[in-house]
Amino acid sequence: MKQVFDYIDGHWQEAVEDLMQLLRQPSISAQGVGIEETAKLVAQMMAQYGVSSQVLPSKGYPVVYGELSGDSPTTILFYNHYDVQPPEPLELWSSPPFEPTFFEGKLRARGVADNKGNIMARLFAVKAYKQVQGRLPVSVKFLIEGEEEIGSLNLPAFVAENQKLLAADGCIWEGGGVNWNGQPLIILGLKGIAYVELEARGAQCDVHSSMATIVPNPAWRLVWALASLKDWDENILIQGFHDGIRSPTEQEIEAIKAIPWEEEELKRSLGLERFLKNVTGFDLKSRHLLAPTCNICGLSAGYTGEGSKTVLPCQAKAKLDFRLVPGQRP
Amino acid sequence: MKQVFDYIDGHWQEAVEDLMQLLRQPSISAQGVGIEETAKLVAQMMAQYGVSSQVLPSKGYPVVYGELSGDSPTTILFYNHYDVQPPEPLELWSSPPFEPTFFEGKLRARGVADNKGNIMARLFAVKAYKQVQGRLPVSVKFLIEGEEEIGSLNLPAFVAENQKLLAADGCIWEGGGVNWNGQPLIILGLKGIAYVELEARGAQCDVHSSMATIVPNPAWRLVWALASLKDWDENILIQGFHDGIRSPTEQEIEAIKAIPWEEEELKRSLGLERFLKNVTGFDLKSRHLLAPTCNICGLSAGYTGEGSKTVLPCQAKAKLDFRLVPGQRP
Repeated sequence: MKQVFDYIDGHWQEAVEDLMQLLRQPSISAQGVGIEETAKLVAQMMAQYGVSSQVLPSKGYPVVYGELSGDSPTTILFYNHYDVQPPEPLELWSSPPFEPTFFEGKLRARGVADNKGNIMARLFAVKAYKQVQGRLPVSVKFLIEGEEEIGSLNLPAFVAENQKLLAADGCIWEGGGVNWNGQPLIILGLKGIAYVELEARGAQCDVHSSMATIVPNPAWRLVWALASLKDWDENILIQGFHDGIRSPTEQEIEAIKAIPWEEEELKRSLGLERFLKNVTGFDLKSRHLLAPTCNICGLSAGYTGEGSKTVLPCQAKAKLDFRLVPGQRP
Repeated sequence: MKQVFDYIDGHWQEAVEDLMQLLRQPSISAQGVGIEETAKLVAQMMAQYGVSSQVLPSKGYPVVYGELSGDSPTTILFYNHYDVQPPEPLELWSSPPFEPTFFEGKLRARGVADNKGNIMARLFAVKAYKQVQGRLPVSVKFLIEGEEEIGSLNLPAFVAENQKLLAADGCIWEGGGVNWNGQPLIILGLKGIAYVELEARGAQCDVHSSMATIVPNPAWRLVWALASLKDWDENILIQGFHDGIRSPTEQEIEAIKAIPWEEEELKRSLGLERFLKNVTGFDLKSRHLLAPTCNICGLSAGYTGEGSKTVLPCQAKAKLDFRLVPGQRP
């Protein structure tokens, strides 16, 4: 393996340049921006790295598939996604989101950590091993989809229709990282998600706010509706929301206790004085790992620019996501 | 007077062209756009219409002052404002807000009805009378400010410092119109206003929504705070808000009953099936004329674009206006 690591140390600049090329290509699934172009680019790169690749259609955005046989038929499937989150609000970026820029030795761009950096790291690892050893010890497959950031709506059908193609002995999920001490993290499960948009409507157009005496304001309706979902003490009030959630087992509790967790570093990095509900220690870890959420991702109504505008808006919208745990039936 | 009206009928196209020139000049006080330019333009037009004018400084945006002596020292002061509301949301305009465009015989542009059309109508009335009769029967003064849409914060001090200049026997306020039957409206009083912005902050930057387990979300805080201001039944819950509000007198009640009011036309124009709290008839009129309001003008937090983004926003904002009635002390 030392030779493989030496190869990586000697050639990492090439991988960084390829990553930068991938980062320059926008691929915003929520907005339908750059999807086809990115799928094609990923497939091209895969081929350059020695993995035979193809772009496969799905009911939604295309999936990039790749494979490379090794010394053993035992197969590892890598799951990744080439789409990224919307870069808005743009004014908070210190460099343009699709122009990768180095800050203190780290590359900054939309999607560098989620998930384009991981794609390149995996492809480069395969290439390095192959260059040095000639052949991989196992076979590998890649499934790189374009809808992860919008809920992977069409992936289940794609997987069902391509079971043979995707068959593998194990699957390694999209990411991974290190904790504040530099220890690599292995994550053995993820929550599910439900994403909803709520919209309230009032008059047929915005009206002058002096009419608030007699014209219903959908922003108020939205506020009241949202306030009915979760109370001040963070209790989710939706009927049946917690049905089916089981308590953690003894084994799970022990495992959670054993996870190292750097509370202070995390708090500092977030600029927080305390966590939600002031949880610490075991409660913090267990809440983060086991609790479902009901989160407001976005709110919009009426005038949100500089200064004041006396308006009674005709619509109000909220985007919410729910992180779901085993047993819940959304 | 017939000759004056004939003059107006014969020359109205000139006034419309001048109005269009004024409308093409943005003057968005909330955003500080085009203020100085508009004040200068209004003063120029005033001079062209035979009213001696000057641009006077205030602690905020400048005030345009004009005067014209008539046959009598009795003086009418016209109050108007040259600033306009922000034109956002721009995508809802069928023609650009600062390019005046005719629709079904009516001119559409930001500020045409509030308040640039009124400025031109008044100046043109003065000019027409003077052209036909040589001199006005009374003296007139104009006070045209640039901060009406942001609460006229510096006007009280300006008036206090210019009492002699502004002295008059009567003041006619900015606007006026006709009801659905074409009857001109004379309005004898207006509510006050308080405009506030609420902002909640959380972590030091937006974070991934999977952190909603342990990171406080300012959008929730804002929702809960707003929900504490007004309940589902439109009752304003702010402590002391209603203190000092007196009941209407018999005379006021009779006056309200006597006001013609076209409920159906108003409902239709707003695209509503019913008014707030289902009020009709006397209750509708009296609520509209006498009730204070607590209105959400704008809401913003997190991601509000196309599709989904799984984000836990680090700030949330609301803009509210309160229409205040006599007796309230904001």
